[in-house]
Amino acid sequence: MNSKLFTLSILLLQELLQVMKYSIEFQPDNITVTAEEGENLLSVAAAAGVYIHAYCGGDGVCGKCKVQVDQGEVFSDRTTLKKEDWDKGLRLACQATVKSDLKVTVPEKISDGRKALKRKPKTTRTISARSLETLIGTWNIDPPVTKLFLELDPPSLEDNVSDMQRVMRGFKQARPGEREPSYDHPELIHELPGVLRESDWRVTLLLLHGRGEDEPLRIIDVESGDTTARLYGLAVDIGTTTCSGVLIDLNTGKIIADASGYNAQIRFGEDVISRIIYAGRSGGLRSLQDRVVSTINTIIEDICRSIIISPADISYIMAAGNTVMSHLLLGLDPKYIRESPYVPSVSQFPLTKAAGLGIHAHPSVRLFLYPCISSYVGGDIVSGVHACQMAKSEKISLFIDIGTNGEIVVGNKDWMVCAACSAGPAFEGGGIKYGMRASNGAIENFHIHPESYDPMIVTIGRIKPSGICGSGLISIVSELLESKVIDQQGKFNRNLDCSRIREGVDGWEYVLAWQKDSQIDRDLAITETDIDNLIRAKGAVYSGCMTLLGCEDYCPKDLPHQTQIAYLRRKMAIGK
Amino acid sequence: MNSKLFTLSILLLQELLQVMKYSIEFQPDNITVTAEEGENLLSVAAAAGVYIHAYCGGDGVCGKCKVQVDQGEVFSDRTTLKKEDWDKGLRLACQATVKSDLKVTVPEKISDGRKALKRKPKTTRTISARSLETLIGTWNIDPPVTKLFLELDPPSLEDNVSDMQRVMRGFKQARPGEREPSYDHPELIHELPGVLRESDWRVTLLLLHGRGEDEPLRIIDVESGDTTARLYGLAVDIGTTTCSGVLIDLNTGKIIADASGYNAQIRFGEDVISRIIYAGRSGGLRSLQDRVVSTINTIIEDICRSIIISPADISYIMAAGNTVMSHLLLGLDPKYIRESPYVPSVSQFPLTKAAGLGIHAHPSVRLFLYPCISSYVGGDIVSGVHACQMAKSEKISLFIDIGTNGEIVVGNKDWMVCAACSAGPAFEGGGIKYGMRASNGAIENFHIHPESYDPMIVTIGRIKPSGICGSGLISIVSELLESKVIDQQGKFNRNLDCSRIREGVDGWEYVLAWQKDSQIDRDLAITETDIDNLIRAKGAVYSGCMTLLGCEDYCPKDLPHQTQIAYLRRKMAIGK
Repeated sequence: MNSKLFTLSILLLQELLQVMKYSIEFQPDNITVTAEEGENLLSVAAAAGVYIHAYCGGDGVCGKCKVQVDQGEVFSDRTTLKKEDWDKGLRLACQATVKSDLKVTVPEKISDGRKALKRKPKTTRTISARSLETLIGTWNIDPPVTKLFLELDPPSLEDNVSDMQRVMRGFKQARPGEREPSYDHPELIHELPGVLRESDWRVTLLLLHGRGEDEPLRIIDVESGDTTARLYGLAVDIGTTTCSGVLIDLNTGKIIADASGYNAQIRFGEDVISRIIYAGRSGGLRSLQDRVVSTINTIIEDICRSIIISPADISYIMAAGNTVMSHLLLGLDPKYIRESPYVPSVSQFPLTKAAGLGIHAHPSVRLFLYPCISSYVGGDIVSGVHACQMAKSEKISLFIDIGTNGEIVVGNKDWMVCAACSAGPAFEGGGIKYGMRASNGAIENFHIHPESYDPMIVTIGRIKPSGICGSGLISIVSELLESKVIDQQGKFNRNLDCSRIREGVDGWEYVLAWQKDSQIDRDLAITETDIDNLIRAKGAVYSGCMTLLGCEDYCPKDLPHQTQIAYLRRKMAIGK
Repeated sequence: MNSKLFTLSILLLQELLQVMKYSIEFQPDNITVTAEEGENLLSVAAAAGVYIHAYCGGDGVCGKCKVQVDQGEVFSDRTTLKKEDWDKGLRLACQATVKSDLKVTVPEKISDGRKALKRKPKTTRTISARSLETLIGTWNIDPPVTKLFLELDPPSLEDNVSDMQRVMRGFKQARPGEREPSYDHPELIHELPGVLRESDWRVTLLLLHGRGEDEPLRIIDVESGDTTARLYGLAVDIGTTTCSGVLIDLNTGKIIADASGYNAQIRFGEDVISRIIYAGRSGGLRSLQDRVVSTINTIIEDICRSIIISPADISYIMAAGNTVMSHLLLGLDPKYIRESPYVPSVSQFPLTKAAGLGIHAHPSVRLFLYPCISSYVGGDIVSGVHACQMAKSEKISLFIDIGTNGEIVVGNKDWMVCAACSAGPAFEGGGIKYGMRASNGAIENFHIHPESYDPMIVTIGRIKPSGICGSGLISIVSELLESKVIDQQGKFNRNLDCSRIREGVDGWEYVLAWQKDSQIDRDLAITETDIDNLIRAKGAVYSGCMTLLGCEDYCPKDLPHQTQIAYLRRKMAIGK
């Protein structure tokens, strides 16, 4: 189980992105980066810090992001370009995707003065959620469920053992020497006689592997015919604000679908403390559980619809959340988490039947919920630490899980310390005037022209912008600061000559997209209040990091014992 | 798990009754038997084959069963005797219970000609269901559930591990070196925080021991305070006709209550084949499951009411039934059991949560259902074989489970063969004119005066008779045959001078009790038709025995492979 995991928000991780395919050289900046086949050229430029005029988020309508492809090939079509531009080798960066090594020149007329934008090449890579595939590439695939196809002899008067004994005999023939699996799932034995006969005694066993050597293999389902090619696992991140799911083909380890949505508990409070208080009201705990379950069910529906499978085809569910989210999913009262001495009910959650919680899954399907460390260091951080394998490394890593609750781990294979800090929802677009979830239309990357202060906007889905997601917010504030549009305190420079910087109804703001370039019915802007919220969230995480990095000298011998800092043992029991 | 079991109907078992307490000598027959303190003297005489006039079943009203206690003491009171009789040492046998070694003389006036009744002492003992305590006396008590009381330190800011971790730590301190138990029961973690705090951190763990070394110990419940003295297991025999339950104190191995009732499935058919057919009707399977569950629930209620405990105090349920009964209890369709090649769905049943079947039990309580061997050799016979420990003996034993389906096992520690035969319900009082279940008022023992053909009747509960139970029927027919009231074909001797032998509305019959001596509104009789039914049932069992005994020469090398004869391996997997 070292390897079937996921993580959602990883900022600083070293040495993970070694699988980029093509070299992309941008001129005249003379910046070279690597990109995978099919990556969008505007996104590659944005990630590389190469400024290209782009107002429409990548929608292909503003026509500003023309670049000259000098060498190599891109996928593109010329519907948005004049034939003479096309023949010159000009392409709209937002409509072009990488097909080979490339040399790309950003036309002079829009790159005037752009030298000021050049930064020294980054030594630390930023990995977004979409780099999950890359992370998974570093794992061995060893899923908790496997399948085994059996062709059994039909019963006869000379051989009339029970149906289940026949299955067991088939198992033992297929896996000689292995211990006989158990079966404890009532539906299985109910359906077995019918499945065996309708499939003409050709069936596939779904096997659940025990955690550790103690627990034997269990047959949890018997399917008609050979279904070994279909083996899907769902990983769900249960965030206080946002829940995300990815479906993984457990035969190959590839992600085949994903979906996400706001945690429907939000209507009962934005942070874990308000949720705990709400859980104490009559029927509150049940409502909160119902909401998170319905959020997960929506994710399952979205995923299944997108690749045309049934929820019953999902064979395993793995979830991670902070300690309060984990309690609420299982319907456990989190009240003692809030009261001194801050004790959770359970930190290692039993393997649960997902359907028993109301999740739309086959009755046999188990839900593994990542163990928590303490009341404020949850399974989300454990899963992240597990996924990035920092617990296997000699080198010391800093791991930050940015969410409504920020959690930070520093350590290596020998020791780890963790801090949790209340960051608020700014990193997820919460409390931001035009904040939104990281879905289509959200500004996720941003650069600014150092003289005209014009924006380069890249949205998720490359359509006209409709809001700002968490990574977009960080990107925007970082650019505004570097270009001195705002100062260190997050206040706008009132003296700049730029119509985008103005005093709006909510105070000073920078217009990211005029109404005509956006999907909303007014100008899309970032305000000083938004920036202030981000600064405070960032400040919380920063102080968490500094507290921990201050601890490093003392580790592992002399750890400070603070309530919010838990010493994660290297051998914390995560799965097998 | 060698030892926490029960069996219901055992006829021939050797060397088990070594714990009788007192020696009882009957004169003038010069028959000496042993009896336990508190045994009823009339019952002791009846079991010893000593004839005493007794018309009223032991109710104390007919006053015929006076005996002279020459030596020793009995518990009795003289309300039913004249003072002069009492002072002479006369006692009503039916109102006297054993208190010491005894020498008892049956008065001459009623023992005339009784010498003909004397039989050579029996070398094979008959054990009735009520000798279960004796059988249990031969077992080691090693129950599947145990309790452990823990006094935990309350949490503090310096020690704020989760509630469950605190419990685990307590377990490890109490049982150093033992593997940490698992916990997979959702209700447990829901209730844990409340139980820990309301009990001031003094709790009792209910532990479920794994079957075999593979499965780890599991915590299935946490109770407030020290409840280790309360540990009850329920054993249920699920017969086609009758269901019986006994409650065992798992700390001591003592039976503390019992109850029984007709299997409420009877309205859907008297034998397993009719039940299988009914299960095939729409809703039939569900109805049959509901009926047997409600029968078990009634038994649980009766038991709990009798000793004033709650059904939630029962910590484990163990049940045994034939293959069809086992399928129906779990709601498994038995249809393939009836159709060639006669295949059950499952023969080793998974440990099931009893409440999940609708049984009134604590949600954590597991139901262990004895494994079956084949479609017609069920868990009832396996439990009997297990209980009497014939599989441990060098000597060859013959084991007969007499019920609606008769099952017979012959073998020893090295080999066993089994036959099943359809006996019909006669052994359980079914198909008998005045047949009844073995409950209060049922004639369970019978002797006949060899000259006057007057009866000696002993009923369960020693009240006036209201019918005949299975063991009474065997006793009656055996006596009628030995005294030549009936012939080998079961026909009455039409020439005897006795008003009790007469031609009634249903043909020839013997009046066991005149209306005035019975609880029913007419004479209670046994008819030739009744006897014929018993003969056929007995014939079925007899031919099963003979078939098996014929096999013995060939065992274990050359067993005949017939559908109805299964070779029980010595190491059949029964519990651990």
